[in-house]
Amino acid sequence: MNALEKIGADAKVAAATLGKLKKNEIDGILRDAAKELVRSAAEILAANAADVANAEKRGVKASLVDRLKLSEKRIEDIAEGLRQVAELPSPLGEIVYSYKKENGLKIEEKRVPFGVIGIIFESRPNVAADAFALCFKTANAVILRGGSDAISSNTAIVNALRRALKKNGVDENAVQLLQDTSRETAREFMRLNRYVDLLIPRGGAGLIKTVTENSTVPVIETGTGNCHVYIDESADVEMAANIVFNAKTQRYGVCNACESLIVHEKIADKALPAIYARLKEKNVEVRGDEFSRAICGEFLPATEEDFGTEYLDAILSVKTVKNVDEAIAHVNKYNTGHSEAIVTESAENAEKFMNGVDAAAVYWNASTRFTDGFEFGLGAEIGISTQKLHARGPMGLKALTTTKFYCTGNGQTR
Amino acid sequence: MNALEKIGADAKVAAATLGKLKKNEIDGILRDAAKELVRSAAEILAANAADVANAEKRGVKASLVDRLKLSEKRIEDIAEGLRQVAELPSPLGEIVYSYKKENGLKIEEKRVPFGVIGIIFESRPNVAADAFALCFKTANAVILRGGSDAISSNTAIVNALRRALKKNGVDENAVQLLQDTSRETAREFMRLNRYVDLLIPRGGAGLIKTVTENSTVPVIETGTGNCHVYIDESADVEMAANIVFNAKTQRYGVCNACESLIVHEKIADKALPAIYARLKEKNVEVRGDEFSRAICGEFLPATEEDFGTEYLDAILSVKTVKNVDEAIAHVNKYNTGHSEAIVTESAENAEKFMNGVDAAAVYWNASTRFTDGFEFGLGAEIGISTQKLHARGPMGLKALTTTKFYCTGNGQTR
Repeated sequence: MNALEKIGADAKVAAATLGKLKKNEIDGILRDAAKELVRSAAEILAANAADVANAEKRGVKASLVDRLKLSEKRIEDIAEGLRQVAELPSPLGEIVYSYKKENGLKIEEKRVPFGVIGIIFESRPNVAADAFALCFKTANAVILRGGSDAISSNTAIVNALRRALKKNGVDENAVQLLQDTSRETAREFMRLNRYVDLLIPRGGAGLIKTVTENSTVPVIETGTGNCHVYIDESADVEMAANIVFNAKTQRYGVCNACESLIVHEKIADKALPAIYARLKEKNVEVRGDEFSRAICGEFLPATEEDFGTEYLDAILSVKTVKNVDEAIAHVNKYNTGHSEAIVTESAENAEKFMNGVDAAAVYWNASTRFTDGFEFGLGAEIGISTQKLHARGPMGLKALTTTKFYCTGNGQTR
Repeated sequence: MNALEKIGADAKVAAATLGKLKKNEIDGILRDAAKELVRSAAEILAANAADVANAEKRGVKASLVDRLKLSEKRIEDIAEGLRQVAELPSPLGEIVYSYKKENGLKIEEKRVPFGVIGIIFESRPNVAADAFALCFKTANAVILRGGSDAISSNTAIVNALRRALKKNGVDENAVQLLQDTSRETAREFMRLNRYVDLLIPRGGAGLIKTVTENSTVPVIETGTGNCHVYIDESADVEMAANIVFNAKTQRYGVCNACESLIVHEKIADKALPAIYARLKEKNVEVRGDEFSRAICGEFLPATEEDFGTEYLDAILSVKTVKNVDEAIAHVNKYNTGHSEAIVTESAENAEKFMNGVDAAAVYWNASTRFTDGFEFGLGAEIGISTQKLHARGPMGLKALTTTKFYCTGNGQTR
């Protein structure tokens, strides 16, 4: 058994013990873990300073260094996140189906923990604590694999969490962090089927692709969002401009931001200038097709590549179409299955678009920016699933559970 | 675009049209497809005779030839299966979650079709019609890949189904059969992520392993069952003998048959002879550990390999244990996550076993043979999932759907 297999085996042993904890015990431990994080702030900040110094020395981009940085305030926010998860209702034990046979056999399908969940994530060290909280709340053991750039911060955070577990008499291996952040070990981790029940990658498109292509452990794809807003012929132009402005500019780096605008040709001469007037307030660069550029001469020309790009930046592509069917086809060709919106006064076209577009969330006359666990009333999320298997859209606690059929009899045979 | 990609693209086009069918239209078409199968009986039987002759010429085992064989009666049964699926309530459109935000945005999570489902199956030609029925009921297009030994039978069945679709004005590509049954094409099929949303293998352990190891399309593992019955210290011996006899011998070739018996040492001298007396009625060969062989001298010695083997035959392995914890550890070491039973008068040990054992279905004082869609009141099933992601245990219609968040507003922004 090598070091990684040992981690897997230890997680499996820990997972078996978590199932025995009562819900109020779990919530109490989460609150203790929050306290322990705050108590360990000096240690975590010192570790984080080392990571930040290292990143700056290596010439890492300022925006990435910023993602890495922790502060007293950020640590308090992370602790508050743990307390909030403690407050959420637990889905464990929920009976999702029940059936009594004529012979008296009672069948109950109940929500149970997965067992061991692996999380592969990029620079933000808060993910270590957030992922632990959601996994622990659902009585799963978690193995974390963060990036090398945040290894000291992640280690300090995980050490604080493990101290809280130990104080409460819980197997510390309910949360483990891979100290070896090499690619080879990451790939081995993706094939640790014997110990890991589910793998969730959290990060950019490159990470997600590597995991889905290399993992034999079941994966839930999260995150990338090439989201569109389609302005239909009958749209209210002012509403359209507000929605596009919000979806594009409220935050650029998020997966539910609008990256591409589709406009019906018959409304383009009214809608495009109105939308562009708003986008100019934030200096958004627009790259459009020929039809749109004939209306707004300031648009740069859009290439095929633009339509497939998640900019995560103050850039927007524009495509014009002849009807809602063409809009649906365009979305289904380029989107990543995240969030898609139509602005229209036609209920018929709204229904057509919402049913026809293949995405986790579809919007009629609202901004794509709402696709989020809190906004949807689901509480903290482990990510936003862009796949169709198991979970789709914002993944709350339920997505971290599986079910099991409990069958109780008194000697029934078939 | 090669031939396989063309099939995938055609399926995707068909899938987009199926979403527009009303539920009663779908059910009517399923009933028509049943009629068309019966009407095509002569054609199907002729094709089947060719497959059977071919298999006999190649010296295929009699039991496998039997699985391949169709008759008027079997075709009527297949048609009846389609009619039964038509009668089932459809899960499509079911609202699984709803939430209204303070700003008026209405969020509804609804059940929707997956899109395109791939089914890879072995010799039984009835699977072609069964899988079509369940996929079509849930408005999914299906691509079938059967074995070369049943290619003529499968083709005749699929042709009948396609005729029924065509008569009803539905895109025939809602069901397609791969004519190329080579391994290379099967592997390419497993990587057709662009067109296939979900892959379900139906067959033996070898097939399942090949699919899970080679597929990049999301997979639901089905079927293999190394199922145990554990006789606890306090078991009612007569009940134990009945349950083991039923679970082992009612049908040998099924995935929920008992393959291994675990017996508490303190009850072994009473339970083993009583159980063995029943098994001898059917000439079941028993392979036991030393402790059990000291009680029943006729048992053959069991090897480590026996405990990991799904015999699908009149053979049973026996392991003795000192307590329920050892029984749980033994099950979790060797099982395939299918069905596991405990026979005990102790509610405490039953709970421990049912919570501790990692399986889709866990039984207290009943036979493992009940793990089945019809027996669980779920209706026809596409298979029995032995994985934890998306679906676990018998998979009814719900397992063939995903969900989508429909968000309706009047200009909401964040």
